[in-house]
Amino acid sequence: MLWRWRLRFQKLHKERLKKLYEKVEKIQASCAVVTSPADIFYLTGSGGGGLLVAGFGRTVLFAPSVSYYEASLSSSGVVDECIEYRKALPLKKIKEAAAAGKAVCDPAFISMSMYDKLRSAGIALVKSERLVLSLRMKKDGEEIKKIDRACRSAANVVDSLDVEKFIGSSEASLAAHLCERAWHAGCAGVSFEPVVAAGKSSASPHHHPSHSRIIEDGLLKIDYGVKYKGYASDLTRTFILNKFKDNFDYEIILSQVESAKTEAAEKLKPGAACCEIYRAAYRKLEEYGIEKNFVHGLGHGVGIQVHEPPYLKPGSDTVLQEGMVVTVEPGVYFPGAGGVRLEDTYLITREGSRLLTR
Amino acid sequence: MLWRWRLRFQKLHKERLKKLYEKVEKIQASCAVVTSPADIFYLTGSGGGGLLVAGFGRTVLFAPSVSYYEASLSSSGVVDECIEYRKALPLKKIKEAAAAGKAVCDPAFISMSMYDKLRSAGIALVKSERLVLSLRMKKDGEEIKKIDRACRSAANVVDSLDVEKFIGSSEASLAAHLCERAWHAGCAGVSFEPVVAAGKSSASPHHHPSHSRIIEDGLLKIDYGVKYKGYASDLTRTFILNKFKDNFDYEIILSQVESAKTEAAEKLKPGAACCEIYRAAYRKLEEYGIEKNFVHGLGHGVGIQVHEPPYLKPGSDTVLQEGMVVTVEPGVYFPGAGGVRLEDTYLITREGSRLLTR
Repeated sequence: MLWRWRLRFQKLHKERLKKLYEKVEKIQASCAVVTSPADIFYLTGSGGGGLLVAGFGRTVLFAPSVSYYEASLSSSGVVDECIEYRKALPLKKIKEAAAAGKAVCDPAFISMSMYDKLRSAGIALVKSERLVLSLRMKKDGEEIKKIDRACRSAANVVDSLDVEKFIGSSEASLAAHLCERAWHAGCAGVSFEPVVAAGKSSASPHHHPSHSRIIEDGLLKIDYGVKYKGYASDLTRTFILNKFKDNFDYEIILSQVESAKTEAAEKLKPGAACCEIYRAAYRKLEEYGIEKNFVHGLGHGVGIQVHEPPYLKPGSDTVLQEGMVVTVEPGVYFPGAGGVRLEDTYLITREGSRLLTR
Repeated sequence: MLWRWRLRFQKLHKERLKKLYEKVEKIQASCAVVTSPADIFYLTGSGGGGLLVAGFGRTVLFAPSVSYYEASLSSSGVVDECIEYRKALPLKKIKEAAAAGKAVCDPAFISMSMYDKLRSAGIALVKSERLVLSLRMKKDGEEIKKIDRACRSAANVVDSLDVEKFIGSSEASLAAHLCERAWHAGCAGVSFEPVVAAGKSSASPHHHPSHSRIIEDGLLKIDYGVKYKGYASDLTRTFILNKFKDNFDYEIILSQVESAKTEAAEKLKPGAACCEIYRAAYRKLEEYGIEKNFVHGLGHGVGIQVHEPPYLKPGSDTVLQEGMVVTVEPGVYFPGAGGVRLEDTYLITREGSRLLTR
């Protein structure tokens, strides 16, 4: 059984590498030099970082000593060789693996220091934005299973919370509980530090849970995600505890944000441009006169990373495809007062979309 | 009181900026372009990322909308202006802030994409490795207080664990407990995903806690750290549960690793070269014939990041100075069998060093 699983795992990763080779060929380069740990995990199954040279003839993973043992096990049968290095990147061996010709890299994941080092070793680099990320945008069946599980677990943790039980506790106490639950849900912890923002704290989109801010009647915003087998999830719920009233009527604002989310989510389908989805939510908030308080993008892809392309934001002409996974998360913030955000994650299906954070 | 604290905060950060200006002047540049979020936090107090242009006349923080409100509050009185941006970096305004002359940057934190963008906007970049990191290596009094607190809290959580109570539980359950405790210790969660490695899992230096691996008699390795007010801690303990015996006598190995740690820690003092400290531990392990199983560096700096310079590793000629904070963490690993690591964090004092993870 384990043996069959292993074969399927190898086949899957070899298919991903094949797609990368096709891109490398189109660019008329001889190999790809991959430096993003998430890209390396996607292509080889190894989560230990390092550097991958993926060529037509030969694919070599360079793994730091500290993760070499795991890297060589997980990438076995996928890459032709896994080479251990101790201190610095073994430039001579990387040059050998890259052989002659141009090596293509994603310039977003190569620092100037590394670029200079590779060049000084005689490796001719050409740049291609989203070299591997463009492949990662469209998830395959194995990935969807894992993201689906991560989304369901996160939703289950937050939606089964008895939030009113936390009235009188600090934001940090609730964060502690959420971090613990991520593991008990069968997942590998949280995919990012949870946002637990009570009352005025909710005015900040990315508030850090505080020990001194006590949860009381009023707003409570929770942004939460977990990791499952290398894949992330992401969702946000805003609660109004005990029919709280303020200068702002948050009940109304919450329903407005909800309708902006619904409006955008209904437009999710293959062929729709990301900026259109953003615009659908923006227009709805504009109707209510709160669009100026919507200070971030509408959503992002979710996969090996919590935030990855495509981005649902103005100017993004990326077109949705079946198999993409995106969040829809309109939010409005009133500095010094409070804020509301609602976020769900959706899989783009042939017909439209499917809610994953359920 | 708050007002006094604020003034002290501003003064402290202005002093740090002044030290940066002195470096910029030496390089004969007109300003620094800072892109590492940790560097920006160190210089301005803002943890929201973005980009900082630190010039002689004027210091401008460019903050993304999503963290603008917090960034402008925390950096007020430290920087001259905090400018919000929505989608992409506002290159024209960055160019204005950078003014004429050369802008110096740390090439390790500028991706090729960003370098190209800044250059195309007409910003003349020169590179200087560890531009801000070299300042961050030596901690000031405020930083030491926070690191000390983070170290004591982490040590308290692990050293007060009744580890035998976890026999029969999964590694993941113990990880859940450790993640929760980080918050209850008054800290802002963990500084990295804890390593909980039982039995054979301990052979891997950076094992991810597993749901299927059950803690039983034998080895249990815990690598753990927490965050306190923006500062990290890091420590590792290896337990042998219930006088377990194996092909390897881990009691002996543990005492050998302990003596390598003591040997190295005794050499910590201003003036000692980092590679010498490494060598002290290496030689000790060599005496026992287990130096080949010591597959990583001996230690690293701890501060805003869990891993930062200086690095106690072969070839590092950085000389220790009073105020540096470093880990000493010899470890030996036997693939397929088990592994042992012991790690403490020390402050370099005028006379020698002080144990922080106590």
